Amino acid sequence: MRIGVIGSGALGLYYGALLQRAGQDVHFLLRRDYQAIRRAGLTVTSPHGDFHLERVNGYQDSAQIGPVDLVLVGLKAYANAQLIELTRPLVATGTTLLTLQNGLGNEDLLAAAFGADKVVGGTAFLCCNRGQPGTVHHLDQGAIRIAEFAKGLSAKVEHLAVLFKQAGIPCEACADLTRIRWEKLVWNIPFNGLCALTGLPTGRLLACPETRQLIAEMMREVVAAANRQPLTEPLEGEGFIARLLDLTTGMGDYRPSMMVDRLQGSPLELDAIYGVPLERAAARAMPMPRVAMLHALLAATEPQAL
Amino acid sequence: MRIGVIGSGALGLYYGALLQRAGQDVHFLLRRDYQAIRRAGLTVTSPHGDFHLERVNGYQDSAQIGPVDLVLVGLKAYANAQLIELTRPLVATGTTLLTLQNGLGNEDLLAAAFGADKVVGGTAFLCCNRGQPGTVHHLDQGAIRIAEFAKGLSAKVEHLAVLFKQAGIPCEACADLTRIRWEKLVWNIPFNGLCALTGLPTGRLLACPETRQLIAEMMREVVAAANRQPLTEPLEGEGFIARLLDLTTGMGDYRPSMMVDRLQGSPLELDAIYGVPLERAAARAMPMPRVAMLHALLAATEPQAL
Repeated sequence: MRIGVIGSGALGLYYGALLQRAGQDVHFLLRRDYQAIRRAGLTVTSPHGDFHLERVNGYQDSAQIGPVDLVLVGLKAYANAQLIELTRPLVATGTTLLTLQNGLGNEDLLAAAFGADKVVGGTAFLCCNRGQPGTVHHLDQGAIRIAEFAKGLSAKVEHLAVLFKQAGIPCEACADLTRIRWEKLVWNIPFNGLCALTGLPTGRLLACPETRQLIAEMMREVVAAANRQPLTEPLEGEGFIARLLDLTTGMGDYRPSMMVDRLQGSPLELDAIYGVPLERAAARAMPMPRVAMLHALLAATEPQAL
Repeated sequence: MRIGVIGSGALGLYYGALLQRAGQDVHFLLRRDYQAIRRAGLTVTSPHGDFHLERVNGYQDSAQIGPVDLVLVGLKAYANAQLIELTRPLVATGTTLLTLQNGLGNEDLLAAAFGADKVVGGTAFLCCNRGQPGTVHHLDQGAIRIAEFAKGLSAKVEHLAVLFKQAGIPCEACADLTRIRWEKLVWNIPFNGLCALTGLPTGRLLACPETRQLIAEMMREVVAAANRQPLTEPLEGEGFIARLLDLTTGMGDYRPSMMVDRLQGSPLELDAIYGVPLERAAARAMPMPRVAMLHALLAATEPQAL
């Protein structure tokens, strides 16, 4: 299958590399890593075993990629103003667009530009950071859940799930995109923002009783707001939260993507992870006061808020 | 009147200097400023006019001060473990102890050691920072409200108010210490912690619509918790909050004491400004979720939380 990766950060490079290793025809739109990957290929370090791809199709302009069967979108949501323009050259009649971006609103953008029936959304529970240019460090986890934007379970998402699983990526085809998106937000909303704001990794926040409790309270706010959305079945509450806290404790001192963004002086994915979820929660009369407070503190500390 | 100042930070030095200038016999327990003040006296810069005190009674040991009529306590509440020991040599039968420290719980400590009838509490609405050793910069405001710890309005606090006013310090004798303490917390709780946490001064937080709204919401939580306490009359809500926001906007980019503490790597007054108020609010079934969240974030980011 001919696959184009738009947004080759840690997530795009890691999944793209696994797909290429499994024999897929993968084409990466590159920015930071272009020179390094053209020169020396792409290296993945992972507890599942390191590997190196000697020959990688890397481009600086998506027009050079041309039409593909599958676009894998890993772009930071704060760069969504460029998303449609970057993606358009890859889209033909039968193209599927799979966005694994964080937060809410990304599928809507792709659907408005290319048609809702082309769009699949997914959530990746992946601990992964970029290293030196040309190197990606896979640290932990990595499973993906995907679902159609415009309808329930389809042969198309089941076929995509098989493709990922053949590449060694645990992948589940799901019927309810809204549900898997909100389920992922239960993790992203507390950890991404609190780590970015405080400069403390996940393990430090979980080791402090006050912030561990705060994280659980924020998760409850997100679950309550999720369960006001039109879901096929409600999210489980306390049991799910307890499992997420345990799972994250096991990840040690992980730095979520938003913390990495702030440490690097990059913008934060505030709209996708906070702004849109807060709007959708408020629209169904379920305010999330702690989430709104975190959003306010992150917004005020962005450099452009000066 | 013979006056001893325990805790000669910005507040203690400023009010002590004004009292000495008005002819009172003031004795300062000094730490950081000892050498500078012994050598060259104490300088106050102020929009009301700068002044310099050439001869200042400064000590490194409170035993050298001995008994006084009035102890003015300006110690940081995080140093309260030393408060009683530092104060004891100054206390005789007729001594009055006036604490202008931040937050809740300070009078209780003094009352337990020296007797409730000796203790007067007060709140200072003062914008003041220390400069070079031996120099205090008064920036804005400066009024004090004082009240007995153990009873209502008394001749003693009215006499103290006259003493302060004669020194050019606006001072009001009040009947209800709990009320003035909580009223001050309506300002301290949002501004001290948010500025310390974000590293942004008051003006920046008020200029950002999200944090301005957050500040107002936190103020509402404090007013609601205050009005569950045994007050002689309830705190006013929205009108008071609007006036505080206006007043603070007029102060420009002020750095509250807790922000200065964090920038200097000092501990924060977390118990007095957050811990005890949260306990007293919870004891009367009025949780303050945003205040608790701020407390958690400040606690987690303290160096000793490592």
